[in-house]
Amino acid sequence: MCAIVGIYGNNNAARLASVALFAMQHRGQEATGISSSCDGKIYTKKDSGLVSEVFTDEALQYLKGNMAIGHNRYSTAGSDSILDAQPVFAKYKLGEMSIVHNGNLINKEEVRNELIDKGAIFQTGMDTENLIHLIAKSSKDRLRDRIKEALNKTVGAYCFIVQSRSKQFVIRDRYGIRPLSLGKLKSGGYIVASETCAFDLVDADFIRDVNPGEMLIFSENNEQPESIQLFEPEYRPCAFEYVYFARPDSVIDGKNVYITRENMGKTLAKNDANKDLKVDMVVPVPDSGVPAALGYAAQSGVPFELGIIRNHYVGRTFIEPTQEMRNLKVRMKLSPMKSLIAGKSLLVIDDSIVRGTTSKRIVKMLKDAGAKEVHFRVASPEIKFPCYYGIDTPNQEELISFKMTKEEVCKYIEADSLEYLSIEDLRNSIGADRNYALESFDGDYFVTK
Amino acid sequence: MCAIVGIYGNNNAARLASVALFAMQHRGQEATGISSSCDGKIYTKKDSGLVSEVFTDEALQYLKGNMAIGHNRYSTAGSDSILDAQPVFAKYKLGEMSIVHNGNLINKEEVRNELIDKGAIFQTGMDTENLIHLIAKSSKDRLRDRIKEALNKTVGAYCFIVQSRSKQFVIRDRYGIRPLSLGKLKSGGYIVASETCAFDLVDADFIRDVNPGEMLIFSENNEQPESIQLFEPEYRPCAFEYVYFARPDSVIDGKNVYITRENMGKTLAKNDANKDLKVDMVVPVPDSGVPAALGYAAQSGVPFELGIIRNHYVGRTFIEPTQEMRNLKVRMKLSPMKSLIAGKSLLVIDDSIVRGTTSKRIVKMLKDAGAKEVHFRVASPEIKFPCYYGIDTPNQEELISFKMTKEEVCKYIEADSLEYLSIEDLRNSIGADRNYALESFDGDYFVTK
Amino acid sequence: MCAIVGIYGNNNAARLASVALFAMQHRGQEATGISSSCDGKIYTKKDSGLVSEVFTDEALQYLKGNMAIGHNRYSTAGSDSILDAQPVFAKYKLGEMSIVHNGNLINKEEVRNELIDKGAIFQTGMDTENLIHLIAKSSKDRLRDRIKEALNKTVGAYCFIVQSRSKQFVIRDRYGIRPLSLGKLKSGGYIVASETCAFDLVDADFIRDVNPGEMLIFSENNEQPESIQLFEPEYRPCAFEYVYFARPDSVIDGKNVYITRENMGKTLAKNDANKDLKVDMVVPVPDSGVPAALGYAAQSGVPFELGIIRNHYVGRTFIEPTQEMRNLKVRMKLSPMKSLIAGKSLLVIDDSIVRGTTSKRIVKMLKDAGAKEVHFRVASPEIKFPCYYGIDTPNQEELISFKMTKEEVCKYIEADSLEYLSIEDLRNSIGADRNYALESFDGDYFVTK
Amino acid sequence: MCAIVGIYGNNNAARLASVALFAMQHRGQEATGISSSCDGKIYTKKDSGLVSEVFTDEALQYLKGNMAIGHNRYSTAGSDSILDAQPVFAKYKLGEMSIVHNGNLINKEEVRNELIDKGAIFQTGMDTENLIHLIAKSSKDRLRDRIKEALNKTVGAYCFIVQSRSKQFVIRDRYGIRPLSLGKLKSGGYIVASETCAFDLVDADFIRDVNPGEMLIFSENNEQPESIQLFEPEYRPCAFEYVYFARPDSVIDGKNVYITRENMGKTLAKNDANKDLKVDMVVPVPDSGVPAALGYAAQSGVPFELGIIRNHYVGRTFIEPTQEMRNLKVRMKLSPMKSLIAGKSLLVIDDSIVRGTTSKRIVKMLKDAGAKEVHFRVASPEIKFPCYYGIDTPNQEELISFKMTKEEVCKYIEADSLEYLSIEDLRNSIGADRNYALESFDGDYFVTK
Repeated sequence: MCAIVGIYGNNNAARLASVALFAMQHRGQEATGISSSCDGKIYTKKDSGLVSEVFTDEALQYLKGNMAIGHNRYSTAGSDSILDAQPVFAKYKLGEMSIVHNGNLINKEEVRNELIDKGAIFQTGMDTENLIHLIAKSSKDRLRDRIKEALNKTVGAYCFIVQSRSKQFVIRDRYGIRPLSLGKLKSGGYIVASETCAFDLVDADFIRDVNPGEMLIFSENNEQPESIQLFEPEYRPCAFEYVYFARPDSVIDGKNVYITRENMGKTLAKNDANKDLKVDMVVPVPDSGVPAALGYAAQSGVPFELGIIRNHYVGRTFIEPTQEMRNLKVRMKLSPMKSLIAGKSLLVIDDSIVRGTTSKRIVKMLKDAGAKEVHFRVASPEIKFPCYYGIDTPNQEELISFKMTKEEVCKYIEADSLEYLSIEDLRNSIGADRNYALESFDGDYFVTK
Repeated sequence: MCAIVGIYGNNNAARLASVALFAMQHRGQEATGISSSCDGKIYTKKDSGLVSEVFTDEALQYLKGNMAIGHNRYSTAGSDSILDAQPVFAKYKLGEMSIVHNGNLINKEEVRNELIDKGAIFQTGMDTENLIHLIAKSSKDRLRDRIKEALNKTVGAYCFIVQSRSKQFVIRDRYGIRPLSLGKLKSGGYIVASETCAFDLVDADFIRDVNPGEMLIFSENNEQPESIQLFEPEYRPCAFEYVYFARPDSVIDGKNVYITRENMGKTLAKNDANKDLKVDMVVPVPDSGVPAALGYAAQSGVPFELGIIRNHYVGRTFIEPTQEMRNLKVRMKLSPMKSLIAGKSLLVIDDSIVRGTTSKRIVKMLKDAGAKEVHFRVASPEIKFPCYYGIDTPNQEELISFKMTKEEVCKYIEADSLEYLSIEDLRNSIGADRNYALESFDGDYFVTK
Repeated sequence: MCAIVGIYGNNNAARLASVALFAMQHRGQEATGISSSCDGKIYTKKDSGLVSEVFTDEALQYLKGNMAIGHNRYSTAGSDSILDAQPVFAKYKLGEMSIVHNGNLINKEEVRNELIDKGAIFQTGMDTENLIHLIAKSSKDRLRDRIKEALNKTVGAYCFIVQSRSKQFVIRDRYGIRPLSLGKLKSGGYIVASETCAFDLVDADFIRDVNPGEMLIFSENNEQPESIQLFEPEYRPCAFEYVYFARPDSVIDGKNVYITRENMGKTLAKNDANKDLKVDMVVPVPDSGVPAALGYAAQSGVPFELGIIRNHYVGRTFIEPTQEMRNLKVRMKLSPMKSLIAGKSLLVIDDSIVRGTTSKRIVKMLKDAGAKEVHFRVASPEIKFPCYYGIDTPNQEELISFKMTKEEVCKYIEADSLEYLSIEDLRNSIGADRNYALESFDGDYFVTK
Repeated sequence: MCAIVGIYGNNNAARLASVALFAMQHRGQEATGISSSCDGKIYTKKDSGLVSEVFTDEALQYLKGNMAIGHNRYSTAGSDSILDAQPVFAKYKLGEMSIVHNGNLINKEEVRNELIDKGAIFQTGMDTENLIHLIAKSSKDRLRDRIKEALNKTVGAYCFIVQSRSKQFVIRDRYGIRPLSLGKLKSGGYIVASETCAFDLVDADFIRDVNPGEMLIFSENNEQPESIQLFEPEYRPCAFEYVYFARPDSVIDGKNVYITRENMGKTLAKNDANKDLKVDMVVPVPDSGVPAALGYAAQSGVPFELGIIRNHYVGRTFIEPTQEMRNLKVRMKLSPMKSLIAGKSLLVIDDSIVRGTTSKRIVKMLKDAGAKEVHFRVASPEIKFPCYYGIDTPNQEELISFKMTKEEVCKYIEADSLEYLSIEDLRNSIGADRNYALESFDGDYFVTK
C-alpha cells in the first residue's frame, strides 16, 4: 500500500502533487517524495516524514517545472525509510528518468537474480529498481518501447509512473489490481492519482480510471494523453481497497468506497436477521468500521452509537508505559464510552481481523467498561492467505483465521458471537458486475509468473 | 479552556499526570507542564508542544515524587507559549508552591492593579499570578487559610490546584462553572481532573465531582482528602462544555456529554417535525457535530450519513496555498463525500456558529459537491455575547448572531434553512434539573465582582 | 560569568544586540535573550541555545524598536535553562521594565527573605528578581530614584541594565568588579557591553568604561547619556577576567587582555630564569594558555610549539565512550602532537588549576605520547577560595589548592615541576596601578554586606 | 577531500569507526556514514550532519559486527547531501558489498558512458558508483579479482575500502596521491584511515602507510592483512595535504604535517632575510597559518603574535547581515587584535590564496584596525591550475594567480608586499626525498587516462 500521483502540464506541478499526496496520506506515512522535470533536468526531493513536513515552501520552489510525480511510502518492517523513499531516479542511456510505483512485483527475485547475473547492481530493496534496470537494459530506441519491453518481463500488481525530462508514462497492470484514475485539472493539465480523493483537493474533474493494461503517455506534442493498450485486460480490482485501504470519499472502478462499506454492513445485518439476536446498539471500531456500522444500523433498525472514541493526538513517540500501565497503549488510541455501553449488549463492527490481538483488546476494553455482551461483526471474510499484490500482511502463520476456525477465533477474542461476511457477500456488497482480487480470502493467486 | 490534573499519593504521580493530560489534550495543545513534589522540593517541567512531545522519559524521571499537578494550555492570541505555560511556581514565606488554573478571573485587572500599587510585580499575563500574590501576601499562618483569604478577593470561574511541598489544595469556584472531578486510582492514591475521560486512561474510579465552593486538601495525615466548603454553592455548570468543549466520553455533573449532545440533536429534530421539511440525509460537521446528528437521525428517521470526511493529518505547518488554491485550507481539513451527497437535500448539523465564516465555507463546499439543498442546524442557541468565564470567544462585534438575525445569518451562509436550539431547548437537552452558565447565549453575567 | 549588552538609539537595535551577544558567546552558551522597546511596549525573546540558534530572522523582526538589552547565560549546575534565561520582564507600578544582569549579589538571600516576609514571591532562582522587587516596592516616583533606592539595599558584584518603555539605565557596582564599557555606534546611537570585543563586530568606537558606582541614563531627551555617580568608587576589577574569562582582543580597564596574559607568561619565565631548568619547548594548553605561553617563550628564548591540538568539533552530545575507551573524552577535545613532543622536555602552560583533574589528564596524555618531562606552569596564583562575585567556582573542598600544597599538587598531577604566579606577580602582570579583586587567591572578600 | 576509515576484527567496530571519523571531521562536515557487517548482512547508517550528530547510541547499536567502514563527506556545490552520502551499498552477483571512497576518478565520465551504453543505470553523481558497476560486471569469480579488473579500468587519485559480508579490501592508487595509513588497535584488530590523527583517538599504533598501488585484504583466515601489489608504484603524495588539508598532528608519508608547515614558514623567512624588511610581528591567519607563522618567527627572530582571533562559535545558520553590516560575515569569524597591531607593521601568513577575496578582506580588516603595514606571506606557491585529484578547487578563471601576476595580486589585496613559496621551496619544506603531486601549482597532470 502506497500512493502515487502524476501532474502534467501545470506550472504548479510540484505544489499540486504535494497537495494530492497530502490527500492520500492515509496510504503511507513513512516517507514521501516528488520529482519534477524542467528544462531537461529532473529535480528530486524525498525524505522520511509526513507530506506536510517534507514539502516546505523551500522544497517546492526547488521542484521547478510543469510536470511532477510523487509518492507516499507505507512503513514496512525492515525497510530503511530514507533510502527506500521514492521516486527512484536514474541516469541511463537515453538520459534521466524518475519512477514512482505502487504495488508488488511477484517475480521480483527472479528478475533481480537474472539482472544481477548479468552484472547489474541493486542499491535498495525496492522492486522499482527492477523496472529501471529493465528499461535501461532494453535495446529499443524509444523510452515507450523500452518500458513495454520491461513490462513484458514484469509480473505483479503494479501502477507505475515513469517521468523523463519531458514526458510522463503511466502504466497500470492488466488486472487493474491497484487503483489509478485520470483527471483534468481546472487550472490546466492532467492528474493521475491512486485515489480520486486527491482530485477534489486539487480541483480536478474525474475523467476515468486508467484501464487495466493501459499505458498513458503525456507529452508536449499532444493536447490529450496518448493511450496504448499494452496488455489484454483481465480486470480484478483489489477488494481490500474497498474493505479498508481507500478513503471513504474515493471512487474506485465507479464504486464509491463509503457506499460499498455501508453495503457490507447491511449484508452483515441481513445475515443476522433471522437469528435471535438482541442487541442494544451498533458500535463501530473507529474510524474504519463506521460506514459498515451505519449500514448495519440502517438495515437492522438497531441504533448506531459511537461507543468507542478515537483519540487523534496519538503521535509517533510517547512514554513507554510501565508494567503497571500495561493496556495503556490500546486505550490511548481507543476509549470506551462507559455511560453509553454499561449494561448494554453491543454489536461491534470492525473492517477486518488480521492477527486477532486488537479485536481481543477491544472486546476486553468494552467488557471492562461494563458491556453486557459484545457481538463482533467483521465487514470482510476471514483472512486466511497473505497478500502478495501490494498489501503489507503478516506471514500466514500469524493470520488468526489460518490457524483457527470462526468459533475458535470467537472464543479467543472473548466475544459473545462472531460473524464475517462470506466471500460472496463481499463481492455482492462491492458490486456483482465485477471479478475482484480476493486472494487474501480465497487464496486464488491469479497473477502467476 | 484548559485542562488541569492533580495526582496525590502514587509513586508514578508525574507519569500518571502526563497520561491524564494526554487524555485531555483536546482542551489545549499550545503548551503543557507538570510540577511534582519530592522530599521538600518542587520539580517543574513545562514547554510549548503536545503532551507526547514535552513529556519524554527523561522529563518524567526528573519529576520525582508521589504527587504532581499538570496543565494543558489552550492557544490564545497574543500569549507567549513558553512564558505563559503552567504550572506557575513560586517561593514565598511558607516555602514553595506551584499552581495550575483553569478558568478566568473577572476581577483580574483590579486585583492586579491593587497589588501593583502595593509594589508587586507581574512577570506574565496569566491570572494565576494573581492568586500566587494574594496567597503570598496573606498574613495567615497556614497555607489553607492563606488560600481562603486569597479566594475571598478572587472573582471568576476557576478551578485551582495549589501544590506545596507535601500537600495539594484543590478549589472549585462556588458556581462550579468549569468542571472538576475526583477519582480513586486503582494503583493507589487520588486523581482530580477537569474531565472524567482522564480517569479511564489512568485506571481510576470516579468518586464524585468536586463541589462548587469546595476545597479538597490532600495530605499525608489523612487517608481521605479533607473537604472544606469555602463558599455557599450556587451551581451553574458551563453549558458550553456539553455543547463543544468536553470529550464525548466525559461525564460532567452526572451527565454524559455524548448523551446530552444526542439530546440536542433530538430536540432539533422535534422542532423540525411539524415543518414540511424533506431531506435525504443527516450530515454532521465532524467531529463535534456527530452525536447531535445521530440524535437528529434517531428522532426523525432520516438516515445519518458521513457526508463530510475529516482529514486528521492536518498539521500545524503546511504549504501556504497560492492564489489559485484559495479554498484549499478548509478543504484540507474537511472533504465532501461527493457520490453520496450529489443531488441530495442535506440536513447539516454543527455544534455552534461563532463568526459564520466556517459555516459559510461548509455550505459552499457541499453545494459545489452537488448538494441540492443544505439545511443547517445548530446544536446550540445563537451566540450573542462573549464569554468571560474561561472560553476564548472573539469580541462581540465578531459574533455573527450579535450582528445579524437568524434569517440574515441563513442568507449569509447561503443555507436553504437555518435553525438553532432555543436556550430552553439547550437547558432541557442537558438536564432540566440544573441551572447552567449560559452567558454566551443570554448575556446573564451572573458572576459579578 | 555572563554577558550583557544594551543598544540605544539605533533602528537595528535588536539585530546589533544579537551580533554583540554573538561576539560575547564565550561568556555563556546556555541561554540567551533580548528585550526591545517600541511604542510603549516591551518585546522579549529568550530561549536556551546559542545566539545563532535563538535569534533567527523571525525573532529579530519581532524585537522591534530602537533600543534593546540582551544577555548570554552561563550554564551553572541546577539551573533551569529556559526559566532562568534573561532578560527578566515585569509589569509594575510605573509600567513595564526588563532587566539584564551580570554578576552576583552576596546579600541575595537576606534581601529575598526580607521581601518574602513582606509577601513577595520569587518565581526563579535568579538574583535579578531581587532588583525588580526592590524597584517595584520603592515609593519613589521616578524610575531612576527607585533604582537608586533598590541599589542601596543591594550588595555584590553587579552590572545591570534596566530598560523601561523609553529609557535605559546602566549601573555598575562601586568596585567595578565585572567589566562594562560604553561605545558609540557608527550607524547611530550607543552600545554598552560587558566586553569591548563586541564593539568591533557592531562597528562601534570605544568611548570609556562605565565608571564604578556610575549610573548612565539613555533617553530621548538627551543626545548624550546622562551620568550620575551613585556610589563612591572603590575600583577593584576582577583579576579572573584577565586570567581566563575575557576574550583576548577585549580591553578591560584600559588593559588589553592578550597583553596582560603575555605578561603573565613572561613573569613565569623570569621566575624560572635562575633555575636550572632545561626544556625543549613551551607548549600551551589551548586555547586559553596560548598568550601566556607566547610570553614565556619570548622571555625565555625557548621555542613555542603547538604541542597540543584542540578539536573544535566537540559538540554537546556524542557517544558515551564504553569502558574500553575511558580516556576518550579528554582526548576528543585535546590531542597531543606526538611527533613533535616525543622524547622532549615540555614546559606546559595553562591559565589556571581548579580541581586538578584536567591538568592531571593533560600531563598523562603528554607522557603517553612520549614526552620525557612535563613542567607545568600556571599563569595565575593558587586558587584557594571560592568566588562569590559572579564566577562559577566549585565548593572550597573541591579546590585542589585548598587541600594540597604546591608540591602535593605537582605530585598529584604527575608533573616534573609545577609553578604558579604569586599574587604579586599577577597584579604586576595586569598593571601595578590598580587594586584588583583577587578573592579566589587571597580570600579577601572585600564586598561585605 | 573526504575521510575514510576501516576497522577490522574488533567488536566495537562501528563505535571505533565513528570515533575515527570524529577525529577526521575537518576533512568533511556535510554528511557521514558507516557500514558494518555481521552474520552475512551489511548494515548501513548515513545522513547529512556532523559525526557527533549522526552517530547516536541507537545508530551505533544498529551497526553490529566486528568490521566497519566509514566516510566523511566534504560539501561540494550541487551535490545532494543525503543521496550522495557514503558508504554506497549494493547487492550484486556475489552477494552484498559496501564501498567508501576518497579521491577523484578522472575517467569517470568515459567509464560511466560506457557502462550506460551497456545498460547500466546511475542513481547518484558519485564516482563510487563506477567502481561498484565495474566490480559487479566483472566475470571473475572472486571479489579480489573483480576489484582488480575494475581498477584496471579506473584512472584517478583514489583510496577505496570495499567491504563484503566477511572481508575488507583496501586499495590506494599507484601514485598514493591521497593519504592512507594502517594501524593496529590496542583493543584488537586493525584500522585503516585517511589520517593518522584518527589512530591516536582510537588507541591504535601506526604500522605503516598503505603502499601506492597496494591492495590489503582483511579476512578471518589470516591474522595479518594480506598484501597484494596491484600496480607498479609511482609515489606522488599530494602536497596540498601538507599545505592545508591534513590535521597538524597527522603524519603522512613519514612526515609530520605540523613540522612541514613550520618548515614552509622558515623558508618564507629565509627568502625574506636579505630584504630590507622591517616588521614588528608575525601574525598567522588562524588556524591553518599558525605553524608556518611559528616557523617564520623562529627563523627570523620576529615575535609571533596572535594578531587575529578566530571565533569558533560560527555556526551554519545565522542572521543574514543587513546592508549596513556588510563586512560582518568575515569579522564574525576573524577579529583583529586592535591594541596589539595598531601602528605596527605586520607580517601576515596564510596557507594559500585561492580567489583572493578572503585575503583582501583580511588585509582591509587589519588596516582598519590600525596596522601600519601588512606584508602578506603565503606558505605555498601560486595556485594556477584546478585540481582534479580529489580537492574541491574552483574553475581556473576564478583562481586569482591564473589571472594575475604576483604584483597584481599584491595590489588587489592591498598588501604592502606579497611573497609565495616557490614550487622548489615547497618540495624542500616537505622533504626533498620525494616527488609530490603539485598539479595545482605546476599544471603537471601526471595521472592520465
